[in-house]
Amino acid sequence: MKDRIANFSAGPAVLPEEVLREAQKELFNYKGLGLSVMEMSHRSKAYQEIIDDAMNRAKRIMNLGDNYDVLFLGGGASLQFLMVPMNLCPEGKVGNYINTGTWSNTAIKEIKKIGKQCHVAATSEDTNFSFIPKEFKLSENPAYLHYTTNNTISGTEFKYIPEVGDLPLIADMSSNFLSKPMDYAKHALIYAGAQKNIGPAGVTMVVIRKDMQEKFNTGLPTMLSYKTHIDKGSMFNTPPCFPIYMVGLVLKWIEDMGGLAAVEKHNIEKAGLIYNVIDNSEFYRSPVNTEDRSLMNIVFRLPSEDLEKKFVAEAAENGMSNLKGHRSVGGCRASTYNALPMTACQQLAEFMVEFEKNNK
Amino acid sequence: MKDRIANFSAGPAVLPEEVLREAQKELFNYKGLGLSVMEMSHRSKAYQEIIDDAMNRAKRIMNLGDNYDVLFLGGGASLQFLMVPMNLCPEGKVGNYINTGTWSNTAIKEIKKIGKQCHVAATSEDTNFSFIPKEFKLSENPAYLHYTTNNTISGTEFKYIPEVGDLPLIADMSSNFLSKPMDYAKHALIYAGAQKNIGPAGVTMVVIRKDMQEKFNTGLPTMLSYKTHIDKGSMFNTPPCFPIYMVGLVLKWIEDMGGLAAVEKHNIEKAGLIYNVIDNSEFYRSPVNTEDRSLMNIVFRLPSEDLEKKFVAEAAENGMSNLKGHRSVGGCRASTYNALPMTACQQLAEFMVEFEKNNK
Repeated sequence: MKDRIANFSAGPAVLPEEVLREAQKELFNYKGLGLSVMEMSHRSKAYQEIIDDAMNRAKRIMNLGDNYDVLFLGGGASLQFLMVPMNLCPEGKVGNYINTGTWSNTAIKEIKKIGKQCHVAATSEDTNFSFIPKEFKLSENPAYLHYTTNNTISGTEFKYIPEVGDLPLIADMSSNFLSKPMDYAKHALIYAGAQKNIGPAGVTMVVIRKDMQEKFNTGLPTMLSYKTHIDKGSMFNTPPCFPIYMVGLVLKWIEDMGGLAAVEKHNIEKAGLIYNVIDNSEFYRSPVNTEDRSLMNIVFRLPSEDLEKKFVAEAAENGMSNLKGHRSVGGCRASTYNALPMTACQQLAEFMVEFEKNNK
Repeated sequence: MKDRIANFSAGPAVLPEEVLREAQKELFNYKGLGLSVMEMSHRSKAYQEIIDDAMNRAKRIMNLGDNYDVLFLGGGASLQFLMVPMNLCPEGKVGNYINTGTWSNTAIKEIKKIGKQCHVAATSEDTNFSFIPKEFKLSENPAYLHYTTNNTISGTEFKYIPEVGDLPLIADMSSNFLSKPMDYAKHALIYAGAQKNIGPAGVTMVVIRKDMQEKFNTGLPTMLSYKTHIDKGSMFNTPPCFPIYMVGLVLKWIEDMGGLAAVEKHNIEKAGLIYNVIDNSEFYRSPVNTEDRSLMNIVFRLPSEDLEKKFVAEAAENGMSNLKGHRSVGGCRASTYNALPMTACQQLAEFMVEFEKNNK
């Protein structure tokens, strides 16, 4: 078996080789301190430096000022589906959501489940989420507008930031977080599960503009209140220390690469290799609107489900793993997150051409 | 700097050297599969084997049958302070708690915060939690009895399991989980943050007897419902994959050592070395009842706070770290979890004798 497969997993996903090597090197003895990061008290000076470094890098990369707090929380983005309305949708106001796929839908279900008012401001559900709505209609008394910047399952991505004036804009960026430059400061709150673009599973980054604190609902359960975690710098209780350390290493890798402009250039080239094969073929077909295609999750179909099965299996035999589409939609999917090397996309593009030739 | 310090941290805490070496070895390329555990889809066969293995080992070590489910959740034990009453204290019933320290107290605060009825069935708060109550008095209509098997901050430990007949017995075992053989099956629900005895921070093990499912409250937020996680085998959303993998390695280490009887023997010897110095000294003093002393967190005082400061600093200079007591109680504390080597306790015991001689 090769040292490294081409890992197209939608998440948990490929991490930068340099980051893994670094983590491996210092896993047993972190910088000569005589212990692993996993063994450090979260109240120690050494660990405080690690988490501070990760927070500062995140803000620097997003070009955010001191009017933002960065939190590292457990529970996954799924817990944010609950925490967002719990903290930011008061009695008498309405959580507004753009529905662009499975995960927006799940967020919508959750606000309804806790008995808050919800309005779907735009949706592409009728076409199986094949496009990104370009317009939306807010409700009366909106509390915020929530959208999902990239749709991991359907393979679409927002190429614009919704204009909402003074209304708080909230984004689930899990699957394209820090994949490109963007006016992050247009958002009141951003959250992202780490396990796609910025680290391993087990930590979710939450970025909150400080003025949101005036809007927080009170009397919430301690662990579900953003205020708890802001006031204690993500150290109200023991945070997921090692996943946060890994996020810090990935953020350093992004900065070392040259920041988000360099990252985006690389991502465009990589995804381009695969979209190019799809566009020049009548064998492969993209189920989504061309202009809304995701740079991170390339969803495509083959002429039949049998061929899709064969494609996924043969690719795996050739060291390209996780090309099966999400179980809810079928088809094929190549996730090409930041850390996926160019060579993996080249290999896949060549394999696709070859497979088409052999199976047309 | 030495390769390994003697790490007396109360958590995150020392991990077994063998476990760290194994994790380091396969961090870049897990068992020749060409990727890190951190890069595996949680839906992959390889990862399913990892989590299944950890669950099965946990049940085997605790001698629990198929009438128990093992969950791996994010959010820490602090989230369990909320989830327990939310799921298991219905309208009209009363959550009963034994209050033996800071963490029981925090659990009590949380059930009150969400407006459920709470009764303190026994407490040692009056004596600053210096002992473990031997009796308790349940309320009318109790939903369950909750207790904290080991008190990390005050340094006391239950040496008995409360007898509650058919009433569900719930235990926060975070700081002495799997440190000794015990009739685990007397419990309806056990939870433990991993970062003391069974792994790194970022995952909490929850063990639930299947008959509790009939008692679960319904209509809960998705991520806060035990049923959600039981039904999906801890895979409703992406779990904290790498911390779970580490827990699996630690559980294997426990089994390889010979299970809990061997672990306890080792722990008694280790703690004995330090308690022995305290008992044979008029310089060191234990603030807790002798019979209730913890095997895991050895709390002690010196004649003055200045001497305590000096003690902690000199110990650190000699490679023994984290001997400062919790900031809420002061004094000194040596945490001697499963993974702490005998040599660390020998070193500390010798240092204590020497320090007494030099500072009496």
